[in-house]
Amino acid sequence: MSPIRGYVFDAYGTLFDVHSVVEAGREITSDPVTLSATWRQKQLEYTWLRALMGTYADFWEVTEAALRYAIRQLGLAATDAQIRRLMDAYLSLACFPDVKPALGRLAGRPRAVLSNGAPTMLAAAVTASGLTTFLEHVISVDRVKTYKPSPRVYALGPETLGASAGELLFVSSNGWDVAGAKAFGYQVAWCNRSGAPEEELGVRADLIVDALDRLPR
Amino acid sequence: MSPIRGYVFDAYGTLFDVHSVVEAGREITSDPVTLSATWRQKQLEYTWLRALMGTYADFWEVTEAALRYAIRQLGLAATDAQIRRLMDAYLSLACFPDVKPALGRLAGRPRAVLSNGAPTMLAAAVTASGLTTFLEHVISVDRVKTYKPSPRVYALGPETLGASAGELLFVSSNGWDVAGAKAFGYQVAWCNRSGAPEEELGVRADLIVDALDRLPR
Repeated sequence: MSPIRGYVFDAYGTLFDVHSVVEAGREITSDPVTLSATWRQKQLEYTWLRALMGTYADFWEVTEAALRYAIRQLGLAATDAQIRRLMDAYLSLACFPDVKPALGRLAGRPRAVLSNGAPTMLAAAVTASGLTTFLEHVISVDRVKTYKPSPRVYALGPETLGASAGELLFVSSNGWDVAGAKAFGYQVAWCNRSGAPEEELGVRADLIVDALDRLPR
Repeated sequence: MSPIRGYVFDAYGTLFDVHSVVEAGREITSDPVTLSATWRQKQLEYTWLRALMGTYADFWEVTEAALRYAIRQLGLAATDAQIRRLMDAYLSLACFPDVKPALGRLAGRPRAVLSNGAPTMLAAAVTASGLTTFLEHVISVDRVKTYKPSPRVYALGPETLGASAGELLFVSSNGWDVAGAKAFGYQVAWCNRSGAPEEELGVRADLIVDALDRLPR
């Protein structure tokens, strides 16, 4: 790998555990793990579909639409108040235990988040998990009104950090995001905490780690 | 609905039953239904991701990549010969029983297929299922090197049939494809054979039928 002038992190699934909403799901189902998985899958699908259709709606709207679909698909029912509580859980997602030690170790070079999240969602999650002082930049796709893996999104990293993509290390736990960042030109680390199989998208991470505190300084 | 000057059909899942590959799957798993579902889901994901990344590869390549991913995700193993047999099943997919009567009824106005499939895949499936004389046009996304639901794909329908999108009826069993076609400007019928929940993408079909022979002439 070449020298690294800054770090660009994915947020959901990489810093924040999206499945920490499972607790809030117990109110409407005895199988909140399946609800959370279905919700997350649909949330990603809707970002990809809307980006391709050219009908951007922000991540808060997409996340609620995906939740409503997941509830119907699983044959569940939820009141508006219950949907509100599930959505609110997104504003205070837990961060993974390796996140703070990892970000602390990398201090000295700019550390950024580049995320699908709407600005208010990102601000809430960063604050709630105590990451404010660990991040120099929090960048939302909302600036370009499309979603990952569009190159227009990945371009925001170099633009904001003032370095070329090849001088930055992009870090994601999402295999498809790894592929998108690599295709764009970043150096890329895949944080594969769950032992997921590698995606078959024609590009590979430069580095695979099983926790963020294994990233190179 | 307005008068209809021609029909544009999705292929996979609408005319052709993609899960008719299940039989070929029995060679490598006792649960070929899960293999087929995982394969199909990943196949769609890869089309969306590659379209967004701007790294088009044709549907044959994407379909094989998705199969290889599905096999690894499910912890299965397959020889190259077994993968070849599964892929070959895609060239002779069964068409649903309502397809021929429906297309026959609509004769007199142009009937087109507009599909993600690579030209050779589409030609093989149309021939194998005896649909050649029922279709005036078979259009592949390969002409524009991207995938549904990109507007560049949907534009091929009006271009080929010489009518505006609003004068054509687009027919698909895939909810996300219905949304893409509707956002583009077609009149759209959703053939919902399986009683699937409606997608939450901000647009709705003009018409929902449970079989193709219910389409308006």
